[in-house]
Amino acid sequence: MCEMESTHKPLLFSYFRSSCSWRVRIALALKDIEYDLHPVSLIKNGGEQYSEEYKKVNPMQQVPALRIDGFTLNQSLAIIEYLDETRPNPPLFPKDPKRRAQVRMISDHITAGIQPLQNLYVLEKIGDTKLEWAQHFIIRGFQALEKMLQDSAGQYCVGDQVTMADLCLVPQVANADRFKVDMALYPTITRINQSLLELDAFLVTHPSRQPDTPPELRAKTP
Amino acid sequence: MCEMESTHKPLLFSYFRSSCSWRVRIALALKDIEYDLHPVSLIKNGGEQYSEEYKKVNPMQQVPALRIDGFTLNQSLAIIEYLDETRPNPPLFPKDPKRRAQVRMISDHITAGIQPLQNLYVLEKIGDTKLEWAQHFIIRGFQALEKMLQDSAGQYCVGDQVTMADLCLVPQVANADRFKVDMALYPTITRINQSLLELDAFLVTHPSRQPDTPPELRAKTP
Repeated sequence: MCEMESTHKPLLFSYFRSSCSWRVRIALALKDIEYDLHPVSLIKNGGEQYSEEYKKVNPMQQVPALRIDGFTLNQSLAIIEYLDETRPNPPLFPKDPKRRAQVRMISDHITAGIQPLQNLYVLEKIGDTKLEWAQHFIIRGFQALEKMLQDSAGQYCVGDQVTMADLCLVPQVANADRFKVDMALYPTITRINQSLLELDAFLVTHPSRQPDTPPELRAKTP
Repeated sequence: MCEMESTHKPLLFSYFRSSCSWRVRIALALKDIEYDLHPVSLIKNGGEQYSEEYKKVNPMQQVPALRIDGFTLNQSLAIIEYLDETRPNPPLFPKDPKRRAQVRMISDHITAGIQPLQNLYVLEKIGDTKLEWAQHFIIRGFQALEKMLQDSAGQYCVGDQVTMADLCLVPQVANADRFKVDMALYPTITRINQSLLELDAFLVTHPSRQPDTPPELRAKTP
């Protein structure tokens, strides 16, 4: 009986520290969608994402991927847009087309303009100068993002509603922290990030609270 | 009078060879939207995108950007989604949510998984090994894309309708050609690309036919 139920639950392939996986975990939490988690370690055994088994799940050998409604999706924004189209409450987009465009501009700016240049796979190819490389691209992206947010932000990235843009912002700020970027230069980004981290959906999906989080990186508070 | 009309026409900031600009040019052509073109050379004077004037148009100092309906958009996919929401004919997405998700997966795969790693700004930082670097990321992305298309393609990337995914595919294949990637390994990508290049909207927007195309790179046939 439990197994039957389980086969109908969405299955998320995720790594605790992957910022792209975190975006999708937040969407699932906001929409209160129960799911099973299949951890894929990007580190263990040279990277479990490179296994033949996982290649069948996602030919790009990246996390996240989501099995849902009888098919398998990858690419975090495509997953979030699908969830929003098929499970519209609460919506992750405003209704006004211009505001929707602002949400997608900010999301694409982070997911295509910043994150791909500082992900694990790229940094491994960069080698010794990887910290400087990652900082360079995050700083360049955050300088532009700080300006973009001055046009769009209210309490969150676009007005006062939590949108897909916020699901991209928080994991990217966590990456910036890991790469020791000085966040004092980006007061709007910092303020929005802090507001979002007070919300349950962002807290429970945090990399420090995942089933595959190593004990030494686990959040100490319950 | 002409000037009045002109101020109501959308204004596209574009560079003839930018694959991200080409995506938007195709969308505008398919939807038969008249626009004025403001060429931004990524090469001349150390790159016109770095000017203080252009920074006000797009803080990320990249093309494309589109002035339309009283505001300025950047990020090609956000622009295309906005055009599709406000000018829905012909639609650039199927109606079925799963097919829509396939369109976004393929689009994100190209625009976040491949293009950012071989764009001009990144290659300038890579230096001498830039050809090998660009080839590596295009080949890795095309291997996955070829598999993804086997699940989704009909005549075009997703079924038999031209979608946003096709607007991403053709400019990325042009980039692959420039970086001398052996396309014989990707028969599905090659077949779809050839079908699309028979359509007017892809032809008239081609980098070889733009107002800012240098004479030596211009298409010879009318």
